[in-house]
Amino acid sequence: MEGNKSFRIPQSDYPRIVIIGGGFAGVQMAKKFANKAVQVILFDRHNYHTFQPLLYQVATAGLEPDAIAGPLRKLLDNSKNIFFRMATVSQIYQDRNTVFTDKGTIEYDHLIIACGSKTNFFGNSDKFEKAFPLKQIPQALDLRSHILQNLEQAVLSSDEEEISKLLNIVIVGGGPTGVEVAGAFGELKKHVLPNDYPDLDLNQMNIYLVEGLPRLLSGMSDFANEKSQKYLKKFDVHVMLKTMVKSFDGDRVVFDNDDTLSTNTLVWAAGVMGNVILGLPEESVFKSRYKVDSFNKVLNTDNIYAVGDIAHMETEKFPKGHPMLAPVAMQQGENLANNLLNSFQNKPSKPFKYKDRGSMATIGRNKAVVDLPKNMHFGGFFAWFVWMFVHLVSIIGFRSKLVVLTNWIWNYFTYDRGTRLIIRPFLPSQLGNLKKQELGQK
Amino acid sequence: MEGNKSFRIPQSDYPRIVIIGGGFAGVQMAKKFANKAVQVILFDRHNYHTFQPLLYQVATAGLEPDAIAGPLRKLLDNSKNIFFRMATVSQIYQDRNTVFTDKGTIEYDHLIIACGSKTNFFGNSDKFEKAFPLKQIPQALDLRSHILQNLEQAVLSSDEEEISKLLNIVIVGGGPTGVEVAGAFGELKKHVLPNDYPDLDLNQMNIYLVEGLPRLLSGMSDFANEKSQKYLKKFDVHVMLKTMVKSFDGDRVVFDNDDTLSTNTLVWAAGVMGNVILGLPEESVFKSRYKVDSFNKVLNTDNIYAVGDIAHMETEKFPKGHPMLAPVAMQQGENLANNLLNSFQNKPSKPFKYKDRGSMATIGRNKAVVDLPKNMHFGGFFAWFVWMFVHLVSIIGFRSKLVVLTNWIWNYFTYDRGTRLIIRPFLPSQLGNLKKQELGQK
Repeated sequence: MEGNKSFRIPQSDYPRIVIIGGGFAGVQMAKKFANKAVQVILFDRHNYHTFQPLLYQVATAGLEPDAIAGPLRKLLDNSKNIFFRMATVSQIYQDRNTVFTDKGTIEYDHLIIACGSKTNFFGNSDKFEKAFPLKQIPQALDLRSHILQNLEQAVLSSDEEEISKLLNIVIVGGGPTGVEVAGAFGELKKHVLPNDYPDLDLNQMNIYLVEGLPRLLSGMSDFANEKSQKYLKKFDVHVMLKTMVKSFDGDRVVFDNDDTLSTNTLVWAAGVMGNVILGLPEESVFKSRYKVDSFNKVLNTDNIYAVGDIAHMETEKFPKGHPMLAPVAMQQGENLANNLLNSFQNKPSKPFKYKDRGSMATIGRNKAVVDLPKNMHFGGFFAWFVWMFVHLVSIIGFRSKLVVLTNWIWNYFTYDRGTRLIIRPFLPSQLGNLKKQELGQK
Repeated sequence: MEGNKSFRIPQSDYPRIVIIGGGFAGVQMAKKFANKAVQVILFDRHNYHTFQPLLYQVATAGLEPDAIAGPLRKLLDNSKNIFFRMATVSQIYQDRNTVFTDKGTIEYDHLIIACGSKTNFFGNSDKFEKAFPLKQIPQALDLRSHILQNLEQAVLSSDEEEISKLLNIVIVGGGPTGVEVAGAFGELKKHVLPNDYPDLDLNQMNIYLVEGLPRLLSGMSDFANEKSQKYLKKFDVHVMLKTMVKSFDGDRVVFDNDDTLSTNTLVWAAGVMGNVILGLPEESVFKSRYKVDSFNKVLNTDNIYAVGDIAHMETEKFPKGHPMLAPVAMQQGENLANNLLNSFQNKPSKPFKYKDRGSMATIGRNKAVVDLPKNMHFGGFFAWFVWMFVHLVSIIGFRSKLVVLTNWIWNYFTYDRGTRLIIRPFLPSQLGNLKKQELGQK
């Protein structure tokens, strides 16, 4: 294909594959395409891959970002045919085989959409502007600083109403993320904060996990639901089932029965939706995901594919589409990459078949739940150990594995959380003011 | 002393010591006062202590903040008579024995000012508003993201002028910080970036170290000066001596001979000045530092002390005041804490005497310079090893030592810099826009 000027991509005799998104699926595919007879351009708006399953540990002061973020250029170091470009894709022009980004346009032979999902406020994002979503690293860091600032502020207050507003934490969504965040805050309250804040009455800190359904972890077994509720109770987390939130103004939450609760911390873990890009026909989109066939090809297109959270693939086993999970994304990425490479050699393609290896959630030290295929379930210390092992193995990059492992060992034995730092950025504008202040102080 | 309402400090029969600042001196003293017959209130605007000597490694993607920042509450965990309060002190009312902060006021029996230094623009801060100072963690993170963003931008550009603006780095100030920053960027350019950016011509990246004096490391030996210049040359750093900068507008630097250089990165390491607080008589201040006697007592006061960078102590050996260095701060803190504890038992006080154990600077892997007392100097691998050992031992907190050590080992053997992540915060305002964008994309 011809070279590209905006992105300084050289001319190549190989077919050009453009991948949008460096998440689980995108990285998996780029690695598969490395040093093969294709030219690959990988776009992401960040210069790193985020290991989202551990994002909640950044938010709860257990890990620093480098533990769960891998620089994309490092991950693709040894592949001369893969070009990473930091850019945000804004539109797809199907009839011109072109994508538009904030940094320029580029033509493709094959386009793979792997841009994942974003926080879903179910049409009420204006009522939850002050909520803390938990999909990206800056959001996790923001939540960490917010919680710690609240604690420092609470130490200074003698107003009971203000103190409970500062200390209460409401988590919306009883899926794995909600359960893990709630458990991690419970652990902080029980094991870390009493040493740090001897002059604070931590009984005034209440952690609520709010879920609309009558159970937690709805994608998992009854065993996992019951066990996780039991574990959360041990960490003093109040589980509120069959409850919805109506609004949050930064000072109080309103529930669907019009009860209110005083808090300035509402963590939104209630759901995600596809990150659909402008340009493809409406009929190709179903509930903010691209409809794909069993080869991950988007409906009504010839050379456009979608994988992972953004793909809606209905099969006999998954009549409502596949779950939005990392293993699905990775397996779809691998299958699609193989199919494309095979097709260039006129070999046949294989339809995607999800291998479900089970699901799990951790609540805190020594406490997790694991569902395996064939109705096997277990909890407790062994589940927690399996959870850690599987996550360690899944993290991309040896350095991140090492950082996570040493942090976990440290946190486990010391009951410490080393990253409880309130780090707020200097903005250019603030910096100006700061300098003026400093000057004023002479 | 009576209790204090704004800070919820209980009543105590012991004298109350208020310490402003949790830097080297402040933490040293708080540890000395732990579980002694005093009540101590420690103020800091951050909730962590910063190990400033390694700040430059955060800016150059070698370390994450948790490596060099220790939560103050953790450092003071086991001392029931020490109360940490996150607040910024705005004024001292000497005649009322009171300090004013942004969170309330408090009375003291003894006041210790240990608030350190801040960036000194020598009256030209308006001409360097776009410069990157390097005194605090958010500044270091900002610089890290800025450099990496420039690199990503340069990959997309074919405009030679724009590329050199994006890649050039100018560091102002040839003291230890300037030398260490320049060396670290040189190392990045030589060992890390070639793998990451194969499509970038790194010869277009020029690193300049600008110093007004005819030499580098003016506080150190001639040997250190010569050796460090030699080492910097090996990392392709252009050392510009007898040169000053006049202004920087974010696009180009103007030098004192009216030469200009195209760059959007100017790191300001040219000097620091005391962080003087309003309220004490003008006669007690000399060049933005408090004049203190050899017991660190501020002139014209009875019960106010200053230690570390903020203290100007003239002695026979130091007729122009002591150097603004961490060892001075720690030793002054220790001596003052001992003197105060002794005075409560009517024991005599000892004047401060600085034990100079030498000074050093590192330029990069295997390259450092060390000056020891009695005119002993050495460089090379052994100096680099000593530099690392001394810094490791000096970092407060075992966890930070461990994090720094493992990162150093990793970085040394892999030539990797794991934290090259562009992490920009979400601001509440941006978050609003982001949500609107997401909604717009439906």
